[in-house]
Amino acid sequence: MKILLINPNSTESMTAKMAASVAARVGPGVEIIARTARGGPASIEGHYDEVMSLPGLIAGVQQAEAEGIDGVVVACFDDTGLGACREVASGPVVGIGEAAMKAATFLATSFSVVTTLPRSVPIIEENVRKYGLSAFCRRVRASDLPVLALEEDGSNARQVIRAAILRAVEEDRCEAVVLGCAGMADLTQWLTDECGVPVIDGVVTGVKMVEALVGAGLATSKINAYAPPRTK
Amino acid sequence: MKILLINPNSTESMTAKMAASVAARVGPGVEIIARTARGGPASIEGHYDEVMSLPGLIAGVQQAEAEGIDGVVVACFDDTGLGACREVASGPVVGIGEAAMKAATFLATSFSVVTTLPRSVPIIEENVRKYGLSAFCRRVRASDLPVLALEEDGSNARQVIRAAILRAVEEDRCEAVVLGCAGMADLTQWLTDECGVPVIDGVVTGVKMVEALVGAGLATSKINAYAPPRTK
Amino acid sequence: MKILLINPNSTESMTAKMAASVAARVGPGVEIIARTARGGPASIEGHYDEVMSLPGLIAGVQQAEAEGIDGVVVACFDDTGLGACREVASGPVVGIGEAAMKAATFLATSFSVVTTLPRSVPIIEENVRKYGLSAFCRRVRASDLPVLALEEDGSNARQVIRAAILRAVEEDRCEAVVLGCAGMADLTQWLTDECGVPVIDGVVTGVKMVEALVGAGLATSKINAYAPPRTK
Amino acid sequence: MKILLINPNSTESMTAKMAASVAARVGPGVEIIARTARGGPASIEGHYDEVMSLPGLIAGVQQAEAEGIDGVVVACFDDTGLGACREVASGPVVGIGEAAMKAATFLATSFSVVTTLPRSVPIIEENVRKYGLSAFCRRVRASDLPVLALEEDGSNARQVIRAAILRAVEEDRCEAVVLGCAGMADLTQWLTDECGVPVIDGVVTGVKMVEALVGAGLATSKINAYAPPRTK
Amino acid sequence: MKILLINPNSTESMTAKMAASVAARVGPGVEIIARTARGGPASIEGHYDEVMSLPGLIAGVQQAEAEGIDGVVVACFDDTGLGACREVASGPVVGIGEAAMKAATFLATSFSVVTTLPRSVPIIEENVRKYGLSAFCRRVRASDLPVLALEEDGSNARQVIRAAILRAVEEDRCEAVVLGCAGMADLTQWLTDECGVPVIDGVVTGVKMVEALVGAGLATSKINAYAPPRTK
Amino acid sequence: MKILLINPNSTESMTAKMAASVAARVGPGVEIIARTARGGPASIEGHYDEVMSLPGLIAGVQQAEAEGIDGVVVACFDDTGLGACREVASGPVVGIGEAAMKAATFLATSFSVVTTLPRSVPIIEENVRKYGLSAFCRRVRASDLPVLALEEDGSNARQVIRAAILRAVEEDRCEAVVLGCAGMADLTQWLTDECGVPVIDGVVTGVKMVEALVGAGLATSKINAYAPPRTK
Repeated sequence: MKILLINPNSTESMTAKMAASVAARVGPGVEIIARTARGGPASIEGHYDEVMSLPGLIAGVQQAEAEGIDGVVVACFDDTGLGACREVASGPVVGIGEAAMKAATFLATSFSVVTTLPRSVPIIEENVRKYGLSAFCRRVRASDLPVLALEEDGSNARQVIRAAILRAVEEDRCEAVVLGCAGMADLTQWLTDECGVPVIDGVVTGVKMVEALVGAGLATSKINAYAPPRTK
Repeated sequence: MKILLINPNSTESMTAKMAASVAARVGPGVEIIARTARGGPASIEGHYDEVMSLPGLIAGVQQAEAEGIDGVVVACFDDTGLGACREVASGPVVGIGEAAMKAATFLATSFSVVTTLPRSVPIIEENVRKYGLSAFCRRVRASDLPVLALEEDGSNARQVIRAAILRAVEEDRCEAVVLGCAGMADLTQWLTDECGVPVIDGVVTGVKMVEALVGAGLATSKINAYAPPRTK
Repeated sequence: MKILLINPNSTESMTAKMAASVAARVGPGVEIIARTARGGPASIEGHYDEVMSLPGLIAGVQQAEAEGIDGVVVACFDDTGLGACREVASGPVVGIGEAAMKAATFLATSFSVVTTLPRSVPIIEENVRKYGLSAFCRRVRASDLPVLALEEDGSNARQVIRAAILRAVEEDRCEAVVLGCAGMADLTQWLTDECGVPVIDGVVTGVKMVEALVGAGLATSKINAYAPPRTK
Repeated sequence: MKILLINPNSTESMTAKMAASVAARVGPGVEIIARTARGGPASIEGHYDEVMSLPGLIAGVQQAEAEGIDGVVVACFDDTGLGACREVASGPVVGIGEAAMKAATFLATSFSVVTTLPRSVPIIEENVRKYGLSAFCRRVRASDLPVLALEEDGSNARQVIRAAILRAVEEDRCEAVVLGCAGMADLTQWLTDECGVPVIDGVVTGVKMVEALVGAGLATSKINAYAPPRTK
Repeated sequence: MKILLINPNSTESMTAKMAASVAARVGPGVEIIARTARGGPASIEGHYDEVMSLPGLIAGVQQAEAEGIDGVVVACFDDTGLGACREVASGPVVGIGEAAMKAATFLATSFSVVTTLPRSVPIIEENVRKYGLSAFCRRVRASDLPVLALEEDGSNARQVIRAAILRAVEEDRCEAVVLGCAGMADLTQWLTDECGVPVIDGVVTGVKMVEALVGAGLATSKINAYAPPRTK
Repeated sequence: MKILLINPNSTESMTAKMAASVAARVGPGVEIIARTARGGPASIEGHYDEVMSLPGLIAGVQQAEAEGIDGVVVACFDDTGLGACREVASGPVVGIGEAAMKAATFLATSFSVVTTLPRSVPIIEENVRKYGLSAFCRRVRASDLPVLALEEDGSNARQVIRAAILRAVEEDRCEAVVLGCAGMADLTQWLTDECGVPVIDGVVTGVKMVEALVGAGLATSKINAYAPPRTK
């Protein structure tokens, strides 16, 4: 089974970090093809950045599809471009935001999200509503860390995120916490150990979800909304 | 007051038709700048087409913003790219889908939408939910007309749409009908006369809404989600 | 175009203040007919006051309709009596509450409302739900100012409202603020300048919305809920 | 215990019919004071009729309150004026629409409503949403009978309603049916026997609910929305 | 009229306390049969406890049904097993949680719930959503008292609950408070007097609701979900 | 990795069929322990049957937990007892209803469910709402087949289900179909081939989801609702 793990932003170190996080978790016979989309912004922090990342993301999925990919993980927590990716893919396509948040509903009666900047909060809140998860998501919290701070050696990012998780547990009375940025994937185990609640990262969870869907023999529906694009 | 009316697809005849529809309705002192986004698909029928239209749409708004525009109408009923347009614009940005559907709520207790192909129905249904209009929208109906059929001379498009509206009034018990494609703008008056219910077109309504918002002294909020894109 | 701006309470100074606020904003060729409904309470602070204002409100709309009005703005933030007004009017009828709150959704991803007394909060919250705006309205806040305090010279009303707006931005993380009383219309520009977010007043916005709807050729649906009252 | 059963329309025969329906059902020691509000329309079929009935309804509640009433049933299925009645009453106030629909949720997983004219359907649908009952109410159906047809000797009203109930059970797959007009109260037992599902009338149910609330020692909250009207 | 008041946990003192609370409130001719279900846990604090209580609860309802009961009150605030009880009963079955919360909606525009342990909060929150009461329930609050602390002489339970109610009124801006445990039934009058808002106990309210439904001639629907269990 | 696949009803042939369906799909190193709960009814068709199955289900999970299980699949489409199972398990617990329906949201914009008897429809509809999937689930359809008809050799069950799926695609305009009974697991591939849409079975999907969650290092939250049962 070959799964494309595609990072819509252009920061290669983030792609590498995700690939490393996933490596220990994939099942036997599963090959992860980790790629960085071409031409996107260095990080995705808002709607404009999302738009700028989309052509490269779609092209990356199309190319991998031509190579015979079995499923796709879109590794931006905003779940940008999922509909278009599903039109051009035949196997399952999962966003890391939906993967992590839907996984949380199997494990706890409520969760909060800890993300990067405040400007991403309304985008994630809109996804929460779109996925029907309003009753389960207590709050989407900004840590005030820019995405790229997660890539800097020596930053205090992990301490900031740990503090935000503990605040979420205390103030939101949530029973699990979802990490709201692909760049936090490497911190999952440490944060889980530190915080005493399930800490859910969408990168690993998204890959495992695609594995599960492919393994169950499932594929994207092709009869209406996700039919291949019409030729003009 | 200068309002950009931007067509995200590349079909110039549709832009011209919209401009003509709007011309008779704009107030004194209002200048409509009707433009076709560069590089988009000939029509927008699904998520992939949306993505392909976005870079040209955003670039068009940025250019007009630099020229001193007061407000923007995005003339695709899917309301694609609104968030990104709001980040790069200072004045109000209105999508024709939201304009028409929100206008309907002032005029009737319920409405149905008549759009083009079935594949656009789930996209519009998702917008209905996102805008909080589920209680007001009875049904989103496909007429099975491709977008470009609306541009062909001698097509039976207007009869097909008239029939769909009458079916919506009868079967959905709706009190108003929203036209679910920018390419139907020229049919509004004829359909209203034929059908006996308010028939609401988003192109004219969107332009009038932007006029209203600008005229009320209102602009896009710049403190969080719609702040200008971050420099990378 | 003739638009009736009708104040359902009996306080003439409030009607005059609204007319003045609107005067600078109406388009060329738009005549505003500002009237005070007969027989209503001095202010509308609760359901009983609403009921007491209704016969005068409806009579006022009926009279103006007979005079050939093109549209109606009901200038009480509770949006009382809209359905009945729509039954007796032919043109569009807009409440200032719905006008301001729906306008906010074009400008920001979220808003809070600042109103007068706590007893009006549940009434406005119910309207928020009725309009489908629960996902967009962060909170309805009382300033603890009675409506008529807004009419007193030398009161500290504007400072109280300014403080409530700033608290809303800080605590509710909202991106826009809606003024929850017709009597605040004259403060809009000052508050916008002071607070750095869109501050939206329903009186001006409601008039502009009616202008927009009439200008788009739209009228109230007459086929079911808003058909003229049945003769008994 | 004294309970006011107030008919907001001016048709005395309907008040008498309701009083007769209730007589056999009230508990020992419960006195029903059945009154017709002064000055209302002969029937309530739409928002305008509601407004015209309100001053007489409120005055009737105020008068009965002065006489020492323990609770109030507002006998119009639209539940018009409940908030204002609650401000002027001290005991519980129950509308027959909410009484019947909330009672249905104890007896079945879903219900449909059978009412009179189509123009009342959106009013009742809005109440369904307001009460949080959207998941339980399958459909609000019009029988196309005007309210006053229910008062005419020799009309086929009961057959029409019976047919509508059977259609609701068949087509809506509902497990109970709510009678959507006070004028149907006398038909409840016959319709239940005929149709094989719980048929719920709000007049009797409303009276019994008020009996229950008063009997449980409960009264209207007076700390915010339902505090007595402010003196102007 | 004979009403079964069944306590699903095995604590006889709680059953006795409930019976005493109800005694003063039942109407003439109403016989309350208060029973403790066999084999349940001493208190119900979580899903596991619910499951353990169910076989005894259902058996108790079946036995009482065979004895000719007219209606049933399930006296656990979690409303556990209601569907199964409705399948085996012919008269109305009411849970004390739904009784109290639905009663609150007749008396106030909002309520909060004060319950025992935090682990019961998500269970009650889920019921709030299931009943459609999300817009009315401000918050479900834990008092941190285990259920059985309510049975201990000399505990400070009533002071703890009083404090929680006052906090709910202050912080949640609710207009009524629902007691979230059957074991609080004896405190209702004292708490109401102390706190100045309607304090609603489900045990008395549930019994009165069943009285009302039976008195109105209503019974459980037997045509689909609540039809008798299928014989295997 | 050891996963308990537990059938809450007492029909061993159904357990065997499920185990066979799953066998071909599990990953290397995954051991499925398929068990039939003791003491349950032969099939689960309604709330009473659910209750009767619960003690055996919970005991089965407790026993497997003591044996060192890594995760649990509850193989009844009603998802009965999930909360209690989560209290007694440490690894992830997934119901086949939630597994299949949540999986569908990754593959299509909408789905319908095809289940057995009409009396199960409201139970599943309530789960749809509880999981936040109302916007995605077009309809829950009964095939009118009792559960055990799926176990009979020579029954026309597969043709009946095939017909129901095709009707769902046609009438509901859904893009995927979920099989609403564990007993249909063996038909998935044949139905997918016949019907041209993703046909999703919860048994295989549930096992793969548990594999995914365990593989991602995730476990049930133990800090509040799903903490171990309290000792009495």
